[in-house]
Amino acid sequence: MKFEIQGKDPNSKARAGIITTDHGEIQTPIFMPVGTVASVKSVHQRELKEDIKAQIILGNTYHLYLRPGTDILHQAGGLHKFMNWDRPILTDSGGFQVYSLATSRKKSEEGVRFKSHIDGSYHMFTPEKSMEIQRYIGADIFMAFDELTGIPAEYHDAKRAMHVTHRWLERCRTWLNENPELYGYKQTLYPIVQGNSFHDLRKESAQYITDFNADGNAIGGLSVGEPEDVMYEITDLVTDILPQEKPRYLMGVGTPWNILECIGLGVDQFDCVMPTRNARNGMLFTWNGVMNMKNAKWKDDFSPLDELGTSFVDQEYSKAYVRHLFISEEYLGKQIASVHNLAFYLDLVQTARKHILEGDFNEWKNQVVPRLRQRL
Amino acid sequence: MKFEIQGKDPNSKARAGIITTDHGEIQTPIFMPVGTVASVKSVHQRELKEDIKAQIILGNTYHLYLRPGTDILHQAGGLHKFMNWDRPILTDSGGFQVYSLATSRKKSEEGVRFKSHIDGSYHMFTPEKSMEIQRYIGADIFMAFDELTGIPAEYHDAKRAMHVTHRWLERCRTWLNENPELYGYKQTLYPIVQGNSFHDLRKESAQYITDFNADGNAIGGLSVGEPEDVMYEITDLVTDILPQEKPRYLMGVGTPWNILECIGLGVDQFDCVMPTRNARNGMLFTWNGVMNMKNAKWKDDFSPLDELGTSFVDQEYSKAYVRHLFISEEYLGKQIASVHNLAFYLDLVQTARKHILEGDFNEWKNQVVPRLRQRL
Repeated sequence: MKFEIQGKDPNSKARAGIITTDHGEIQTPIFMPVGTVASVKSVHQRELKEDIKAQIILGNTYHLYLRPGTDILHQAGGLHKFMNWDRPILTDSGGFQVYSLATSRKKSEEGVRFKSHIDGSYHMFTPEKSMEIQRYIGADIFMAFDELTGIPAEYHDAKRAMHVTHRWLERCRTWLNENPELYGYKQTLYPIVQGNSFHDLRKESAQYITDFNADGNAIGGLSVGEPEDVMYEITDLVTDILPQEKPRYLMGVGTPWNILECIGLGVDQFDCVMPTRNARNGMLFTWNGVMNMKNAKWKDDFSPLDELGTSFVDQEYSKAYVRHLFISEEYLGKQIASVHNLAFYLDLVQTARKHILEGDFNEWKNQVVPRLRQRL
Repeated sequence: MKFEIQGKDPNSKARAGIITTDHGEIQTPIFMPVGTVASVKSVHQRELKEDIKAQIILGNTYHLYLRPGTDILHQAGGLHKFMNWDRPILTDSGGFQVYSLATSRKKSEEGVRFKSHIDGSYHMFTPEKSMEIQRYIGADIFMAFDELTGIPAEYHDAKRAMHVTHRWLERCRTWLNENPELYGYKQTLYPIVQGNSFHDLRKESAQYITDFNADGNAIGGLSVGEPEDVMYEITDLVTDILPQEKPRYLMGVGTPWNILECIGLGVDQFDCVMPTRNARNGMLFTWNGVMNMKNAKWKDDFSPLDELGTSFVDQEYSKAYVRHLFISEEYLGKQIASVHNLAFYLDLVQTARKHILEGDFNEWKNQVVPRLRQRL
């Protein structure tokens, strides 16, 4: 994997660049749609490519391990072939899902034992196991197996979890050095900065991760319910330490305005379920603000769904029609909203990129953010 | 509306023709996907046109009356504009849905009073009301308001319902003569043959409908749970009486083999929820038989979903992938299966048409039907 910085904003830490993987290039800053269990929910792969213009998608190791399982993924020749997606894929490590979905977690220095949320069966994730699963999945970028704590947390818990994360990182590297790639293309490991909301821990972790000298670095343990200010403060602090010349991935973030603010703090990669999850509840993100499509105000608004939208759904369907689909509980409404929101997120980061390259990102961002936050 | 017969099969009653409406031509025999409440479930309009190659779709008057309602449809300029579908639309009369969905029905000579299945509110459908609603919807072809009886039924009930249907038909015509079209294009009324499974009633009704001299005629009250033999027998009997030079629409039919058999009996138009409803349960229709996508046998079958399929989903996704989506309850599975089944139904009737024009429909149909019925 290669990362080349093409431009920097003079009035913020924002950068525009290109990540090159064996499955093609990614223009940064980038948003990565979440394809949890080998599907970006309600969206066809050709829509992802042609309409949403996704350059990389994310898969969830925990979900893919449970279904379809590594046997099937291995036989298919990896996730790319299994789901027919030939652009880059990033997988998480399973750590976050074990934390948020599995029941009866038992943590130890070895790893985490947990019960599947699907059938109650017991499983054990260790750093080595996570690496092995991610090898079978065959993502271009895969994530170190980490332990996270919610915010707020006790200082000593956050410190312990951070040190476990660092020790596990070494075990990830050892396993990867001993086990070759499976499908003929390169895979890159991103380590994860932890440390909760404690400045000294975040600094220590950011330094540790920097010294690890990976091709790219991630910031984890944010977007777990903390105030936006805390998210920005920690991100700012960490990006001051992480190396300039490596891409930075802020995990699980966020709203359109979160993304613009964090681009300004020097983040290059984002993922979040928000555009698809909120779409299924009828919430649309647009350049003019947030729309609740169930609202009666749209019932006789026959104008295009989003005049500024970039995908076919924005021009082909009206607000009144999409409102009708949500009120009538027709699944097509969720499909339309999912395509719209993802296309908007991709348009958002591509437009941010353009402004970084033109040198006026920060002014533009400050103009745009209040509008993005409006309720329409 | 115009209907031109282009060819007849020498060994059956099958015909190939072209219906011309103000929204374009329809090549018959044709299958009409059901877009109940202004949406063919889980399918985008552009997929209907470009991938499924639907030439006409169906809307349900009962559903559209309840949601979005005639006010909204009128303001939108009719259903075509509301849902962004510029090809022909046919609407049913609401009679069947009142019979199958509404509660607390009270029938009288005037019409049917019923309770909405959505909010329990009371409504009254009469022949005049059904015509008025269908005018607001603005379908190219709309259906007479009829009363139907299930099979089996008592003779005197079936006879009474048939006579009510005939009297209501006259009221439909009177209303239409007194009320002009709303959106600048022509609408055509199809009357409906009733008479349950009783030969004498069906003959009487078919003669009555023939004498009514509409542009096209429908056969109703079948595909309501009767054995296939009864459906074929009644259809055969009715098409012997209905005029050759008018299109014939067999309402609510059916499986792929039902459709081929009834094409052989001289039917030109079909609609059914089966391809979409069964798709959502994981059942795929193919030229080689019926596939249950939840079956474990597909779990490591990485071949294309349907080698003989005509739509993008058939080549872009594998059996193993679609099986995984159904097992994981990912909605994309339902979307893929819906596009596949509808594209298959359209391919089925287009292929039947080709064989009619080539003069070997009956031999081809007898070869193909046993294969279509197979369970894979």
